Amino acid sequence: MAADASESRDPIRFETHPRQYRHWRLEIGAGDPSVARLTMDVDPSYPLRPGYELKLNSYDLAVDIELRDAVERLRFEHPEVRAVIVTADLDRVFCSGANIYMLGASGHSFKVNFCKFTNETRMAIEEASAASGLRFLAACKGTTAGGGYELALACDEIALVDDGSSAVSLPETPLLGVLPGTGGLTRLVDKRKVRRDRADVFCTMAEGVKGKRALEWRLVDRLLPKSRFDEGVRERAVALAGQVADVPRGPAVALAPLEPTYESDRIRYRHVALELDRAARTAVLTVAAPESPPPTTAAKMAAEGADLWALRAFRELRDALWQLRFNELDIGTVLLRTRGNPAHVVAADRALADAAGESGFCREVLLLQGRTLRALDATARSFFAVVDAESCAAGCLLEVALAADRVYMLDDEAGAVAVHLSPANGGALSTATGKSRLALRWLADPDRVAAVLARGAEGPIPTAEADAMGIATIVADEIDFDDELRIAVEERASLSPDALTGMEASLRFPGAESMDTKILGRLSAWQNWIFIRPNATGERGALTLYGKPERPAFRWTRT
Amino acid sequence: MAADASESRDPIRFETHPRQYRHWRLEIGAGDPSVARLTMDVDPSYPLRPGYELKLNSYDLAVDIELRDAVERLRFEHPEVRAVIVTADLDRVFCSGANIYMLGASGHSFKVNFCKFTNETRMAIEEASAASGLRFLAACKGTTAGGGYELALACDEIALVDDGSSAVSLPETPLLGVLPGTGGLTRLVDKRKVRRDRADVFCTMAEGVKGKRALEWRLVDRLLPKSRFDEGVRERAVALAGQVADVPRGPAVALAPLEPTYESDRIRYRHVALELDRAARTAVLTVAAPESPPPTTAAKMAAEGADLWALRAFRELRDALWQLRFNELDIGTVLLRTRGNPAHVVAADRALADAAGESGFCREVLLLQGRTLRALDATARSFFAVVDAESCAAGCLLEVALAADRVYMLDDEAGAVAVHLSPANGGALSTATGKSRLALRWLADPDRVAAVLARGAEGPIPTAEADAMGIATIVADEIDFDDELRIAVEERASLSPDALTGMEASLRFPGAESMDTKILGRLSAWQNWIFIRPNATGERGALTLYGKPERPAFRWTRT
Repeated sequence: MAADASESRDPIRFETHPRQYRHWRLEIGAGDPSVARLTMDVDPSYPLRPGYELKLNSYDLAVDIELRDAVERLRFEHPEVRAVIVTADLDRVFCSGANIYMLGASGHSFKVNFCKFTNETRMAIEEASAASGLRFLAACKGTTAGGGYELALACDEIALVDDGSSAVSLPETPLLGVLPGTGGLTRLVDKRKVRRDRADVFCTMAEGVKGKRALEWRLVDRLLPKSRFDEGVRERAVALAGQVADVPRGPAVALAPLEPTYESDRIRYRHVALELDRAARTAVLTVAAPESPPPTTAAKMAAEGADLWALRAFRELRDALWQLRFNELDIGTVLLRTRGNPAHVVAADRALADAAGESGFCREVLLLQGRTLRALDATARSFFAVVDAESCAAGCLLEVALAADRVYMLDDEAGAVAVHLSPANGGALSTATGKSRLALRWLADPDRVAAVLARGAEGPIPTAEADAMGIATIVADEIDFDDELRIAVEERASLSPDALTGMEASLRFPGAESMDTKILGRLSAWQNWIFIRPNATGERGALTLYGKPERPAFRWTRT
Repeated sequence: MAADASESRDPIRFETHPRQYRHWRLEIGAGDPSVARLTMDVDPSYPLRPGYELKLNSYDLAVDIELRDAVERLRFEHPEVRAVIVTADLDRVFCSGANIYMLGASGHSFKVNFCKFTNETRMAIEEASAASGLRFLAACKGTTAGGGYELALACDEIALVDDGSSAVSLPETPLLGVLPGTGGLTRLVDKRKVRRDRADVFCTMAEGVKGKRALEWRLVDRLLPKSRFDEGVRERAVALAGQVADVPRGPAVALAPLEPTYESDRIRYRHVALELDRAARTAVLTVAAPESPPPTTAAKMAAEGADLWALRAFRELRDALWQLRFNELDIGTVLLRTRGNPAHVVAADRALADAAGESGFCREVLLLQGRTLRALDATARSFFAVVDAESCAAGCLLEVALAADRVYMLDDEAGAVAVHLSPANGGALSTATGKSRLALRWLADPDRVAAVLARGAEGPIPTAEADAMGIATIVADEIDFDDELRIAVEERASLSPDALTGMEASLRFPGAESMDTKILGRLSAWQNWIFIRPNATGERGALTLYGKPERPAFRWTRT
């Protein structure tokens, strides 16, 4: 692909606010105090990058950044909301999916990371349904195509207008020669349990399926005539809200902007710093512990609001990961460092764990930490965690280290270097497989997990013991540590980035799979391949020629 | 890649016999009557294609065709064997993996299908261990690298010589910029439960891991000094044989060659025919039922030996699939047809199911049918099954239809077209997920499976009822059927082969995953991508430059 526009422009920023939305409208209290309406109304003239128009409610990253923001604000800022109607304002179109011209003009890395971001937004919708007492109803009052239908698939229920023409479809394969990029195939057969042979027919029909057949094939959950559509949707949203009325929500906390400081080779947040060495293609990502003892009651935590360390530090960490994914494509190896007082982190974790059952806000903070760590698991960079004399490998920050591909731990003479366990290591921040990071470390001997947790409850675990417990990957003394680490980073940075991406994705999710790991692992791999094949993105590839009069010319060889 | 040698030569043939082996030696009764020795002794001068030498016990498809044959003959022809020592005859080398020059000279499709074939050989080793009362001991008396170590990983146990230099390794990522292609990553963390951080270190160390560390990291199961190696291996093999002494084996049945007739656009076997329309890029694969009532006792089935329909028809079907995979790369769409008397198939299935518990031979026939059907599931072509007036959609042949992406069923006026269930549809021939093909069809309503099986026990299920039961995908009457099918095939054949491959792989394995689906689905996808990237196979890619003085030049962008 000649034009690689998306990989060499101004950096992308991820913070927004409903007041700044250009593509979505968030209404609280839509016909009922417990119902919100999230309306897609994409402004064609405000794409992320110049060069294409976002017609027919098609989306790009700018649109999804707003959707992601809206879903998170619903969880934190609007505890009165129990059901969300996801709908559109266009005549006869719900959403026509990812913008094809944007994809055609984007480089490979951007395409893959765009899909990963949109997948994570949809997984956050599903997590909010499973854990946050929010139900999502896709109200499809018109054509629901490709990524538009995949957005609907991420909702709890799909209502389709029965107007004789509106269809749901995944036309990527027949029209574009690529796969649905946002989990559509997996959600069809795994989540909605559409029969695989019907899914095959559906995914090769550019025009999609409408009406009774869509219902019979489990592609949608209800059909509503046009005349009763809005009313039927509202009724159903109220009913969905009732299903989750007993999940604790709130108190409301406004998500203040992070406003990091951007320097040429550094991004500084309050608790997080990302330092870039672009020549070496490496970075250091540091997370600092709270500077003072954290609040320990639900009320006091909520009073700190967006300034609560446990919330802010992980929002910052996630933003830094997005910066790496989208703005620093050549940074292949990242050192994960921590610093500060482990006791403060352990205290913060304990307080959150104790309060998460009663306080919706505290539960949301924990869930956000978990999403952030899963984003780390799914980021295609090599991560080496460092635990040395300055580190704070405690609780939720120890999870950061356990998410890394390796943990380098200093064996200091004083015996002061240690890891500190907290309730956060027991599974509250589990991986996408459903298992905790400690459990994934001990698939060979599951009983060890409980023993490690019990030992952690007694106090800090110094290096030698952490090594014996399988937490440290490489241990070195003060004479060798820096050299060992430096050489490992240099070696890592010299390897093929493609092979590392495939290797890391294959090793990070051992054991049982979930829908999320299937989407992030397998689907991403297929996409990676298909996006790069001439049949999709070559001069006469289907994606390249979309919307042009020429027909694509395929090389027919099957693999 | 300019040279695409492997995709335009003489067709590859898959039949062989120990007397013809050039690369392996199969010895029965190796120190003990219950122990066989399978010795890799690759003749460098007999590669599959001219152009490279198979030095240092490196392998190509020719080598793996022999290994596959040997493992299957051990199951059918040598019931006295309970343990197999897999070893090598070279000084200081067990096996150095897939031949890199072969990979470098091979086209993309060949590479992917080569890996799929070798994966299936290793899965057959694991299946023989799980179900056939055979244990495999990898006796690694020297360097065990890449595919060599992956072969060892497929065995039940790995013994490594403790000579201060022999190591096990997966050097693909650091040396070649690709992934281990035969399930190594998945088997490391899923089967052997090696800690993921240690697996990360191991997979980036070109020199591998030896001695005590290999044992401590669970990379091998025992270390033996050189002086005691052969003796220790023999002792251990005898002990392994003892573990499975109570699994029924035999009677021995010699696997006679299939000897199909090759015509320009057709391959004819006794019960199977593969008819090719290369201009349309389509094929018809037909399997015929037994021509007369099949034998119904274990003794009579064994007396028919390799001529037993249930065995021969599925060996033929599998050979036809290999022909498609390796010799007919542009055939994208395959119609699966059956013909003959359904009663004979149902009788054959019943007889096998009844006898499989007592007769090792009958169990092996069932297992071979299952492997064949899983090979169909894993073949990257679009399969449409046809059930019309000539068809025999019964039992194990109905499984062929259920493995297809779609089932086209004729709704005839006479009501004679029907499907016929047998014990083979109840799970004996399950998919790689562990679930039966009927169960995968009814993930949404698992209770339906038992109801369908119960109804099937009562007699044939005509089209309308099969449609209502979810067995048929598309039903059409006699006026429309041929047109419907013709148009569907033409449409399918017009779509991007890459997108279809990814789509089919994503839809064929809904629900829970197994190690096999992870290897075939996810790993294959990663390989597909990595093999095609310039970082591996470009002019200055790592795979291209292997063995040359130049260093690879990587484009560093991460995805």
